[in-house]
Amino acid sequence: MSPIYQATASAPVNIACIKYWGKRDTKLILPTNSSLSVTLDQDHLRSTTTSRADPSFEKDRLWLNGKEEEIKDGGRMSTCIKEMKRLRKQEVEDKNPAEPKLSSFSVHISSFNNFPTAAGLASSASGFAALVSSLAQLYQLPVSPSTLSLIARQGSGSACRSLYGGFVAWEMGSAVDGSDSLAIEVAPQSHWPDIHALICVVSDDKKGTSSTSGMQRTVETSPLLQHRINHVVPQRMKDISTAILARDFDSFARLTMADSNQFHAVALDTEPPIFYMNDVSRSIISLIVEYNRLSLAAGGGYKAAYTYDAGPNAVIYAPKENIKEIIQLIVSYFPQQKDSFKDNFNLFSADVTSQAKLPAGFNENVAKRFDVGAVKGLIHTRVGDGPRKLGDEESLLNAEGFPKTLA
Amino acid sequence: MSPIYQATASAPVNIACIKYWGKRDTKLILPTNSSLSVTLDQDHLRSTTTSRADPSFEKDRLWLNGKEEEIKDGGRMSTCIKEMKRLRKQEVEDKNPAEPKLSSFSVHISSFNNFPTAAGLASSASGFAALVSSLAQLYQLPVSPSTLSLIARQGSGSACRSLYGGFVAWEMGSAVDGSDSLAIEVAPQSHWPDIHALICVVSDDKKGTSSTSGMQRTVETSPLLQHRINHVVPQRMKDISTAILARDFDSFARLTMADSNQFHAVALDTEPPIFYMNDVSRSIISLIVEYNRLSLAAGGGYKAAYTYDAGPNAVIYAPKENIKEIIQLIVSYFPQQKDSFKDNFNLFSADVTSQAKLPAGFNENVAKRFDVGAVKGLIHTRVGDGPRKLGDEESLLNAEGFPKTLA
Repeated sequence: MSPIYQATASAPVNIACIKYWGKRDTKLILPTNSSLSVTLDQDHLRSTTTSRADPSFEKDRLWLNGKEEEIKDGGRMSTCIKEMKRLRKQEVEDKNPAEPKLSSFSVHISSFNNFPTAAGLASSASGFAALVSSLAQLYQLPVSPSTLSLIARQGSGSACRSLYGGFVAWEMGSAVDGSDSLAIEVAPQSHWPDIHALICVVSDDKKGTSSTSGMQRTVETSPLLQHRINHVVPQRMKDISTAILARDFDSFARLTMADSNQFHAVALDTEPPIFYMNDVSRSIISLIVEYNRLSLAAGGGYKAAYTYDAGPNAVIYAPKENIKEIIQLIVSYFPQQKDSFKDNFNLFSADVTSQAKLPAGFNENVAKRFDVGAVKGLIHTRVGDGPRKLGDEESLLNAEGFPKTLA
Repeated sequence: MSPIYQATASAPVNIACIKYWGKRDTKLILPTNSSLSVTLDQDHLRSTTTSRADPSFEKDRLWLNGKEEEIKDGGRMSTCIKEMKRLRKQEVEDKNPAEPKLSSFSVHISSFNNFPTAAGLASSASGFAALVSSLAQLYQLPVSPSTLSLIARQGSGSACRSLYGGFVAWEMGSAVDGSDSLAIEVAPQSHWPDIHALICVVSDDKKGTSSTSGMQRTVETSPLLQHRINHVVPQRMKDISTAILARDFDSFARLTMADSNQFHAVALDTEPPIFYMNDVSRSIISLIVEYNRLSLAAGGGYKAAYTYDAGPNAVIYAPKENIKEIIQLIVSYFPQQKDSFKDNFNLFSADVTSQAKLPAGFNENVAKRFDVGAVKGLIHTRVGDGPRKLGDEESLLNAEGFPKTLA
């Protein structure tokens, strides 16, 4: 019986504090500015991928959540797989002729996200990071996460930041071939584990502009984008790195909110304008602004920071001791259904639906109260680690190399 | 019997295409950038003001819509009245000692807006322009509208643009005393009378940030504002003036929409962010974008331009031949009540509630359909003339010099 070459890995979601918006090279996915994100905990949100190489496979195939996806020639998926095979040959097989020639075998890949697509969370970052991680493991590549990030980046730009845990910068680089446009770890999860996150999944009536096409329209038409790229982001990258290293939540919060605002500002400065936030998103901002104002007025610091990607969902970063209060605040304005919040950290003894409560002195008129369903769900998570190597018992492929759920 | 010194004037509303946002001097109301607006027709929207000077009056008093307003010492109203008295003395009484010394008399002023405050239309521009115009008439001042605009500006910045009809620039100027920060006529109403406007009065749940405090927060905190001021607006002022002189609606529309977007972008880039548009505003933008796309795709030009001031109301500028189609489009998504649209130009033989109709080929999924009341009303108007001198039969003061409606 021939050996089975197979590996399974999981990779995390990341949510940027300094936003990536704009490519200088759309094929290589080279950004117009550096960005920085927090990696979220895979215990709660993750993509898991199993890759197998076998000489009997006729072609590369990939199943996403059990459904086969076409691997288009020259497409992003195809580029990542080809690049990983190239690395296998160059770093392993060419250096040690005794190693099996896995780079010449086709692969079967099965990938699952443990969060519903309906949640509106971008799965491309965790998905490409898990793909690259599982192949790196399958191919026994002796390379760093930064090297792998170069390849994940070509699948989906922000995927490169999911190759590390903790606080991760994507350095934009300057090389035309993209060889220095990669992820670096600013600080590991263990440096500041108290950073928690509350994701507010916001209902939206219409499909927004895809980030791929949206960002290129911004590059082509926004007069403000160049100023952001050249004069705002470089300083913010330095400042937020300093804030993270100093565990300075005040600065971290201010920079995170300002950069979320500015990303949406340049989207709005686009022709025609792009809107990702809706009235629910705006109201969550008003709540967090008032929540911080109350603390600052009492001589305290910032207690929470909102950030919004290319959609209406809010991600609220906060020191863990504030999260219970924040959930109580959010459910005061956005009533939840019984199962729309999973209490990952056992903050409440009772159901969250009964937990509505405003901090003392909170000006309740800063937003109106919405109906059930305006915020469809709440996910409490925290800063997490980088891609994980999983055991064979977690394999998503069956003995024949096909997705288990299809069996 | 002593003579009655009294004058009545009306002044128009104006809606900017290139937006004023930010002061370099808050006392003199000197802006950080030039701006340009269209004066709307006083047949539909106006402030009317009667001023009377009389030696028997004990102090300056002012009634707005029949309700007395306090004239605070050093306040904007007080500044305007004082400046007008100063001009009276300097330009009339000092030059001709035979003229009555009206500058030494107190004044009674009564002002009415013919549009409800609830409409959310800024009445300060037309209000201060009418105040200054009625006093200029009362005082028989031999000065140009530009000179009067210097004084109206100190009441409310954008009021200076309501001293002219047609298409009006507020040149920001550079003098520290504000003596060159004034309105000039780019083109009169008669140059391009076909520019019509449809105001969509949008319901809002909460009171937005006042423009006075909002713009100063933007000046203090937005990293993008300086770029807008220094590198974007100067060229746009030139370009839109050229477009107006050439009656080039395509350029006019593109610049108007881009500048509305950018104004809201810098508001969003403010700390904390300022939002004036809501989901209804966004949807109206989507409709106009699709309406233009359809025309451009067929080889035509732009058919309409949206613009939003510091609130959720949309103002849609369009050549008059498109307005009927635009109203039909708007009421398709925003059903109206029987009296929420006044058919000023007799476009429809039937009630507007039955007029919903989409242009052929319109992608109806660009927005969702809203309930009655999301757009509370529609006002169809057009480019109009400057302040008007009204006869004594339109006086708002009774024989004793008090507001007629209080009699």
